[in-house]
Amino acid sequence: MAAVSSQGMDLSLQFLLALAIVIVAAKGAGYLSTRLRQPAVLGELLAGLILGPTVLDMMHWPVFSDGYLEAILRQLAHLGVLFLMFIAGLEVDLKAMTSTGRPAVFAGIMGVFAPIALGMASAWPFGLGLQHGAFFGLVLAATSVSISAQTLMELGVLRTRVGMALLGAAVVDDVLVILLLSLFMALTGGGGGGALTILWVLAKMGLYFGLALWLGMRFIPRLGFLVSRLPISEGVMALATVTILLYAWTAEALGGVAAITGAFLAGLIFAQTPLRQQIETGFHGMAYAWLVPVFFVNIGLEANARALGLNGLLFALIIIVVAVLSKVLGCGIGAWIGGFTREEALRLGVGMASRGEVGLIVASVGMNAGLLGGDAFASVVLMVLATTLLTPILLRMLYPQAAHRPDWANVPTA
Amino acid sequence: MAAVSSQGMDLSLQFLLALAIVIVAAKGAGYLSTRLRQPAVLGELLAGLILGPTVLDMMHWPVFSDGYLEAILRQLAHLGVLFLMFIAGLEVDLKAMTSTGRPAVFAGIMGVFAPIALGMASAWPFGLGLQHGAFFGLVLAATSVSISAQTLMELGVLRTRVGMALLGAAVVDDVLVILLLSLFMALTGGGGGGALTILWVLAKMGLYFGLALWLGMRFIPRLGFLVSRLPISEGVMALATVTILLYAWTAEALGGVAAITGAFLAGLIFAQTPLRQQIETGFHGMAYAWLVPVFFVNIGLEANARALGLNGLLFALIIIVVAVLSKVLGCGIGAWIGGFTREEALRLGVGMASRGEVGLIVASVGMNAGLLGGDAFASVVLMVLATTLLTPILLRMLYPQAAHRPDWANVPTA
Repeated sequence: MAAVSSQGMDLSLQFLLALAIVIVAAKGAGYLSTRLRQPAVLGELLAGLILGPTVLDMMHWPVFSDGYLEAILRQLAHLGVLFLMFIAGLEVDLKAMTSTGRPAVFAGIMGVFAPIALGMASAWPFGLGLQHGAFFGLVLAATSVSISAQTLMELGVLRTRVGMALLGAAVVDDVLVILLLSLFMALTGGGGGGALTILWVLAKMGLYFGLALWLGMRFIPRLGFLVSRLPISEGVMALATVTILLYAWTAEALGGVAAITGAFLAGLIFAQTPLRQQIETGFHGMAYAWLVPVFFVNIGLEANARALGLNGLLFALIIIVVAVLSKVLGCGIGAWIGGFTREEALRLGVGMASRGEVGLIVASVGMNAGLLGGDAFASVVLMVLATTLLTPILLRMLYPQAAHRPDWANVPTA
Repeated sequence: MAAVSSQGMDLSLQFLLALAIVIVAAKGAGYLSTRLRQPAVLGELLAGLILGPTVLDMMHWPVFSDGYLEAILRQLAHLGVLFLMFIAGLEVDLKAMTSTGRPAVFAGIMGVFAPIALGMASAWPFGLGLQHGAFFGLVLAATSVSISAQTLMELGVLRTRVGMALLGAAVVDDVLVILLLSLFMALTGGGGGGALTILWVLAKMGLYFGLALWLGMRFIPRLGFLVSRLPISEGVMALATVTILLYAWTAEALGGVAAITGAFLAGLIFAQTPLRQQIETGFHGMAYAWLVPVFFVNIGLEANARALGLNGLLFALIIIVVAVLSKVLGCGIGAWIGGFTREEALRLGVGMASRGEVGLIVASVGMNAGLLGGDAFASVVLMVLATTLLTPILLRMLYPQAAHRPDWANVPTA
């Protein structure tokens, strides 16, 4: 429905136009990227960087004067990444994922501690002490596999040992980073509490994962069966949407885990039902027609690479190298110890190198707590962007023989 | 991507929870409504009314403290109604529409002007002047085909002369109401109402319709063919989405026509392409899983029936009677002049009496423009609810021997 105030009506029009520009830019750039044998996601990210404050600064064009516009696009982007992680969860074969258990767990654990160690070491010359340095390392430890998952889907290799281990390791990474963050905040923050706080954080997380999986596995298949037979228009799609929203919400609000982890869990659960194919087809259209492109473009819209000074740029350059190396080495060695071949371990490590929303969330929590300066934050944003841009390129190089299979044929199975 | 500030993170969580509540309430109430042999849209509207300020006032619960939340839901609702009108356009079969002939056209035309005349007359004692009264009549003129069509389908009589004429007359009604609305808005919004202004408005509208249809018919089929063969993920769906957004935007920003008209035109154009079925399937899932329910519920969220005084309630009662009588008389007499028997004409007139989304859209556009007060809007919502409830009951009474044959599986209800 049209908005109530005339200012709101303008907002509606601005929103329609901005959304159209974002989708056209994303799809056009994605197509060009594919033509250059790169994953479409790379082009979509670059489109965002060009539309954002770094180059064109679209959100400050005179037509887009409404301050609500950015907030609305951000929420749509958030929905987009939730749908993306849900689809990734749908793709997961639980047996395959648990069968990659050891490499995934080792890669997840070492992929957190290597960046913390290397981050501390590299922040030290810039005057960060032990506490601030350790926190800075923690910021570098948070991986985000949405980009890698998308790239592997495009390359048609998500359902391999490496792909499954990537998703498993990402869950381990997420849990560990959030645990350490809670630990850090409990130890340094005003909250106090110490051991009790840590126990409470652990209990909440354990309770969330346990309840979410148990309730989901127990009731969602039945609920899906029931809803698919009831006279509810698009009942199954609506059930899946609500499940994503509630799992994402409870993950962050109640379990203290990232919302995308909740969406991923929801996907895992629906993957076990006979409705999987139907849901995947429905969500794929909705997600990739507009919501996921909005997510990728919005990353660039929120980053301003121009705002960094020379010192910041140097710092950013160093942490980009540290970020990539620490993940490739940490996760790679972890996976190798866990039983992967060297080639598999390298692919997994590179896949884990991309950072995203969790890193930014950790960084913003740290900034609020005075553990991270504003320029360090800007460098982190640049690092997220750089790893996000690099990972698809590097992954593509590590799968030279993978028939680049642009997924215009719809559902990325096989 | 999750927002960077902790305030923004809260908004994300509020948004997820609010969206989940809205979808669950809509689908649950829609289901109950269907169980009670009523259209699902009735339940969804009631769900919105209950969640809104009339009963629960959900948007002012402590959890939903962020002022952006309402703006975001409103924009999603706006997208929802654009998709709804796009799907309506996709479903129009131009040949079937033209074959319904004289009864449909006469019923459609007289079914618009009778409510305008009667609405003006009945609004006059309540102090509405000529302009506001005429607009109020226009709100009463907008019929909603989905409710009656579904009822006739359930009665097994949609494929009769009356059923076909109902669909044709509803299209005539839609086009006429939207034309009159656009004309009205242009004349009252622009200030001066001289002959030149009218000519300019008509010229802009004509130009918009001409260009939109000509360009669309000429280039969109080719573009669709091209995109469907390019390696772009969900390229066809993305093209349709962008077309809806741009048609809706140009309609309002350049043509001075309602945004929903643009979305409807986009649907008409894609209906002529071989991509119609693919697009309809994709959009149906997306639209009815969450965006359209958000639209229906949001109507209730923005209406406050409690704000109706005794005067307002009396007003609502009167307009319910006027709404039903004016359609039955206007459409009935029109169809009778067009060649229907008196029985057929009565059935058609009753079928046209249900109101729905178009009436609410017209009303909300009027509220934005200051042509309709908040209490009049609340009365319109009540009127929509009442006619939606009455029409199936009355129709069933007019088809006493028809077997009630629930056929929900094939009906794209709300």
